[in-house]
Amino acid sequence: MNNTYAIGIDVGGTNTDLGLVRNDAKIVARRSIPTGNYTEMEPYVRDIMTLISEMADQGDPEMGVSHIALNELTGIGIGAPNGNFYTGCVEWAPNLTMKGLLKFEEEFHKYVSIPVVLSNDANAAAYGEYVYGGARGMDHFIMITLGTGVGSGIVVDGKLVHGSTGTAGELGHNILIPGGRPCSCGRRGCLEAYTSARGIVQTYVELRAAKGTPADADNHAGWIAPNTPDKDVTSKMIGDAANAGDPLALETYRMVGQWLGLACANACTFSAPQAIFLMGGPTKVGKPLTEPLAEAFEENLLNIYKGSCKIHMSQLAANEVAILGAAALVELRAKN
Amino acid sequence: MNNTYAIGIDVGGTNTDLGLVRNDAKIVARRSIPTGNYTEMEPYVRDIMTLISEMADQGDPEMGVSHIALNELTGIGIGAPNGNFYTGCVEWAPNLTMKGLLKFEEEFHKYVSIPVVLSNDANAAAYGEYVYGGARGMDHFIMITLGTGVGSGIVVDGKLVHGSTGTAGELGHNILIPGGRPCSCGRRGCLEAYTSARGIVQTYVELRAAKGTPADADNHAGWIAPNTPDKDVTSKMIGDAANAGDPLALETYRMVGQWLGLACANACTFSAPQAIFLMGGPTKVGKPLTEPLAEAFEENLLNIYKGSCKIHMSQLAANEVAILGAAALVELRAKN
Repeated sequence: MNNTYAIGIDVGGTNTDLGLVRNDAKIVARRSIPTGNYTEMEPYVRDIMTLISEMADQGDPEMGVSHIALNELTGIGIGAPNGNFYTGCVEWAPNLTMKGLLKFEEEFHKYVSIPVVLSNDANAAAYGEYVYGGARGMDHFIMITLGTGVGSGIVVDGKLVHGSTGTAGELGHNILIPGGRPCSCGRRGCLEAYTSARGIVQTYVELRAAKGTPADADNHAGWIAPNTPDKDVTSKMIGDAANAGDPLALETYRMVGQWLGLACANACTFSAPQAIFLMGGPTKVGKPLTEPLAEAFEENLLNIYKGSCKIHMSQLAANEVAILGAAALVELRAKN
Repeated sequence: MNNTYAIGIDVGGTNTDLGLVRNDAKIVARRSIPTGNYTEMEPYVRDIMTLISEMADQGDPEMGVSHIALNELTGIGIGAPNGNFYTGCVEWAPNLTMKGLLKFEEEFHKYVSIPVVLSNDANAAAYGEYVYGGARGMDHFIMITLGTGVGSGIVVDGKLVHGSTGTAGELGHNILIPGGRPCSCGRRGCLEAYTSARGIVQTYVELRAAKGTPADADNHAGWIAPNTPDKDVTSKMIGDAANAGDPLALETYRMVGQWLGLACANACTFSAPQAIFLMGGPTKVGKPLTEPLAEAFEENLLNIYKGSCKIHMSQLAANEVAILGAAALVELRAKN
């Protein structure tokens, strides 16, 4: 086969990671630059282009490709906070040191004439799963990303749903419990308030305050020590404790699974996906999450969807998904 | 301009209405047959084809068209319970006297070779709004139909979302209030349980049981008489009473508006539509519904969607929407 190559760029508030991605999901080369050092887009894009040229110059020795010309790349995909697929801009991203309306596509086109495609990071992750991961061949699926926040990417008919504004697919801010917990968005009861890393910690802290820690907690390896201050509890710590049998941690993830299962069931009434994929730190805990999740999903799923939608974990490695997802956006543009 | 003509067929449990539809949204001719008289699909389709031929034979005198050949029709669109866009079949519709898997598309193709397109009635209504009504030019919108049940049709990128199974767009069974009211689907807390005609009556009956009717209710023209048995209360009656100032009826619709506003706000996190359209009997009440609805929508809408999505009432006449919607499906097939 003739391999093709795309560039995937993951714009984070602290660092920007980029890679040369082969069409068989192999990241051939990668680079990183500190996003936070830039207050202007022009030098930032210039420096990225230097790194892209470096990677392309080195080609893909494993496949006997000694050099890739920039115009032979299939495109540049960019996953960025507030990245807008329609406009090719990053629009007033609060966590970037570069401010305002950043015309990325236009800026990259000063250097190359290949497609430059932007979307947000959760959408990129979804499309990465579609092009390179477990959603290959699925034209209808949803990706939900659990982390500091809860994001989502929705694929319908093989294309990401961007909606009228480019901002579709914010299931983290679907109101799951009307009048429920305050959310970072200023409203109440959003999925994110319950299933983000912060939401998970909040559930644990609330349970501990209500029930106290088990009397013999100190005797169990891996349980969260009763004297751990609330502010030091992390979702990772709760996950590890759950797997060590800590009953409060298990109950925390049982509740997270129930909320997430309900949210997944609700999402089915929208797009009747073949699958819902989950990714992000809190999904790594395994059975303490997946068992109550599966149960709640089944319990809350409308009859007509039973059997037609499965919940899966992302098949992309945590340290690759952002670059692969960004690179996958190039394929999406080819469809639009 | 050269006019074009499609056939729209609305398959109801009792009657089937069909019409010859001109591309400017004019229903040139209509017919009806009693669905309930048929237990087999073949004679049913044969009789419909006879009516289609009759209408086509008479042409469109208003436009000076004396006759339309069957193969000049752009297609036959069918809105039917459990109508599946992908398979062209009606699949085990519980309310039809014709049972099992009904291969409509195949059966019609014994008579004509023009496109035959099926979907369910709410999807048809949505596409009718897109082709002939208030959603013209909108590539992202949602239609929610309030009636005996609550249905929905979701348009993304100018196409109906049918999902992996053909059964996407069941927002009536999105769980709005976890653990809430029993719903006809066997689960709890669905939007339908609160905003269908039945849900509206239930709210009124519950309010009346809790608060009693106003002492002077009998003195107010148009208020619901205190001695009206629960089983005789209808959503229409509550709507009329609300417009006459009946405080219990007003409170009922205020609650309906709040639930519906929350549901509409949640729907935005999925597809970021330009508009959400509402249709059906309970939407006719006017301000007692639309004012609390607008307020709740605004209150529950995620910041990034504010200003980009409006709630509208359907612009299609209640007695035309089913036929127009069905006919519109022909345009949808042309896109797929």
